[in-house]
Amino acid sequence: MITAVDVLDVRFPTSASLDGSDAMNPDPDYSAAYVVLHADDGFEGHGFTFTIGRGNDVCCAAIEALADHVIGRDVDDLGEFHRRLTHDSQIRWLGPEKGVMHLAAAALVNAAWDLAARRAGVPVWKYLSGLTPEQIVDCVDWRYLSDALTPGEALDLLRAAEPGKAARIAELERDGYPAYTTSPGWLGYSDEKVVRLAREAVADGYGQIKLKVGADLADDRRRLAAAREAVGPDVRIAVDANQRWDVDRAVEWAGALAEFDPWWIEEPTSPDDVLGHAAIRRRVAPIKVATGEHVHNRVMFKQLLQAGAVDVLQLDAARVAGVNENLAVLLLARRFDVPVCPHAGGVGLCELVCHLSMFDYASVSATMKDRVIEYVDHLHEHFVAPAVVENGRYRAPDAPGFSAEMKRESLHRHAFPNGPEWRQHHG
Amino acid sequence: MITAVDVLDVRFPTSASLDGSDAMNPDPDYSAAYVVLHADDGFEGHGFTFTIGRGNDVCCAAIEALADHVIGRDVDDLGEFHRRLTHDSQIRWLGPEKGVMHLAAAALVNAAWDLAARRAGVPVWKYLSGLTPEQIVDCVDWRYLSDALTPGEALDLLRAAEPGKAARIAELERDGYPAYTTSPGWLGYSDEKVVRLAREAVADGYGQIKLKVGADLADDRRRLAAAREAVGPDVRIAVDANQRWDVDRAVEWAGALAEFDPWWIEEPTSPDDVLGHAAIRRRVAPIKVATGEHVHNRVMFKQLLQAGAVDVLQLDAARVAGVNENLAVLLLARRFDVPVCPHAGGVGLCELVCHLSMFDYASVSATMKDRVIEYVDHLHEHFVAPAVVENGRYRAPDAPGFSAEMKRESLHRHAFPNGPEWRQHHG
Repeated sequence: MITAVDVLDVRFPTSASLDGSDAMNPDPDYSAAYVVLHADDGFEGHGFTFTIGRGNDVCCAAIEALADHVIGRDVDDLGEFHRRLTHDSQIRWLGPEKGVMHLAAAALVNAAWDLAARRAGVPVWKYLSGLTPEQIVDCVDWRYLSDALTPGEALDLLRAAEPGKAARIAELERDGYPAYTTSPGWLGYSDEKVVRLAREAVADGYGQIKLKVGADLADDRRRLAAAREAVGPDVRIAVDANQRWDVDRAVEWAGALAEFDPWWIEEPTSPDDVLGHAAIRRRVAPIKVATGEHVHNRVMFKQLLQAGAVDVLQLDAARVAGVNENLAVLLLARRFDVPVCPHAGGVGLCELVCHLSMFDYASVSATMKDRVIEYVDHLHEHFVAPAVVENGRYRAPDAPGFSAEMKRESLHRHAFPNGPEWRQHHG
Repeated sequence: MITAVDVLDVRFPTSASLDGSDAMNPDPDYSAAYVVLHADDGFEGHGFTFTIGRGNDVCCAAIEALADHVIGRDVDDLGEFHRRLTHDSQIRWLGPEKGVMHLAAAALVNAAWDLAARRAGVPVWKYLSGLTPEQIVDCVDWRYLSDALTPGEALDLLRAAEPGKAARIAELERDGYPAYTTSPGWLGYSDEKVVRLAREAVADGYGQIKLKVGADLADDRRRLAAAREAVGPDVRIAVDANQRWDVDRAVEWAGALAEFDPWWIEEPTSPDDVLGHAAIRRRVAPIKVATGEHVHNRVMFKQLLQAGAVDVLQLDAARVAGVNENLAVLLLARRFDVPVCPHAGGVGLCELVCHLSMFDYASVSATMKDRVIEYVDHLHEHFVAPAVVENGRYRAPDAPGFSAEMKRESLHRHAFPNGPEWRQHHG
């Protein structure tokens, strides 16, 4: 039983460098509204939601507001745990199922899965892979999904993936899962740095890199030309506009980059604009359209898939309400045969999403075709069991839990606003 | 110049009665995250966002987080004021433009319009009606709208409405604006109470009432039959499901109510489900489809209109980011020739939305055809200049400002959790 919930406002002063800079987010301070569930058997559950600085305190306040729904409960029924957090009618009014309250639910739900997997002594991806199709379906909130996917259809999809599951799990433990890297392409980097990091990425075994675009077209063309020359024709280069454009602008800009063969254009416009993405996708083909890191719930993902608006679905571990809602997203993506390539980076997102992709391979899609997990080489040193990428592939996590736990020293040092790191910045 | 921002958590224990009960919200405590801007010339600006209880404190924390963007500024450029609150990249990450942070922005933006109109000595609807087309267009954040409406097209629409504006303003001051009432139809009411209140509404001059539905079909059929018999064939009866259904369910349920001639079906499914609403609308015609009180920003309204998903657009005064974003919504509705019938009720929403509909009539749509403003007879006694409905029509507000100001005694009494009203409930 959960007896206490600790909530910590943890921020990293990443705006001091230009790591993480893009056309919409020039100066992020990567942050986590971090939560620890304490259970009466001595186990803990760690989780967080990711933000980029200001407002992280509001997410912490939102987690505090939800803590009453968690204390005194346990994690033996994670479907019910999830619904308790998202179905409170007074809280639901503040969304529904979006924004700060949903980010807060994500932190708590992910912490509950961490707790359950620690107790079971396995990493979350294996904990999930050990669930039966019926158990997985019970974890999903099916409200508003039946015009695209029913629980019965989901069961059929999951049962169809059962054969070969053990072999795929063994494969994941042996070979890991493909990654791509965004480290070369931050908008604040010089051309020389982009070229150098792009070459290093290829040498490190990556088959795909990503560049930020959208601030200045001449800059984008020059950087993309340099990166393409550096990596050659066979390495995929994705570009990411971080919601910078209206529909027509996105089409024009993508057209102006087409000669450099971008693999996908990511977040060309508002993440809310399902119809806008569908229009852009029709007009920029064969360049693919990707989105998802800011798509706030399963109803929006459902529509992106129904409208044929995306070639690549980029779920985020803590934007929707954690593992449970991402189970719905993975099942919807399988239903529409759209590859899932999770958003990561920030702080801790790489640690979380690799569990989801590995579960997807084991139990849902059963394929890695055109699937890659984002990797950014930032802030992993703060985690007890950090994500590891070798030869361009995520290694399968083997520590019990969700890999969400940060080191005590890191939590202390980056506590906002009174931790040593912030006292130093202000002083 | 704004020198201080007061933020108050104000809640009314409305769950003690069943006023306000519906199929999704069985026990709302109508609440306001209330803000007062203090300017150095002695003027104040009052605003709020509406919630139904738990989480109102999180909205207050969100307003506090935005207060730095307001202090030291003024309200002479309300377009810039609005963009400053919604374009902060770190804050934007928490939405973007949705949920708690957007509700908080609404409170501050509405307070700024209140302040500006008080200084000008006029009610907000007349302040807005006195702006030139160019000034109105400058107040709108046009990002993500250009595939549906450009600033130039908006200027053309506004200029086309200039002739006759003075006569329409005089008409509003003389005759007011049509209202409909939701007071008869709360889900917790007995059949007898529904019938009695429906008859009273007709006697009071209303041409439309609204009933809550969606919990139990047999109950809904019985109540709707009774209400239809009570009001006769010529009074419009809208029904409101408060997001209770999936797509197929909505179609079936609406079909089972069709014999009682419902005027519109409101919020049949998730407010995020643009494609779902479009499918429902095609299948339930000639029953109209209405939504909007939970539609979180202009990008979602744009798509509802582009997809032909709604017959009636129900803007809310404080769900989107206040007056500025509602100007965009009114212009989009005009562009697609869809009538706007604002959501109201709760606490203070009637007070606010009548300003927006009257401005719409004066300067944008120039018509009242099929347009009605919701009215609920709750909690008006707490306002300094309450909304007044007579003979089924909203009277045009004449007090300077946005009618948002609550009485000092009410603010004190309902302060949460330490005001006398709440100490009494807990004690």
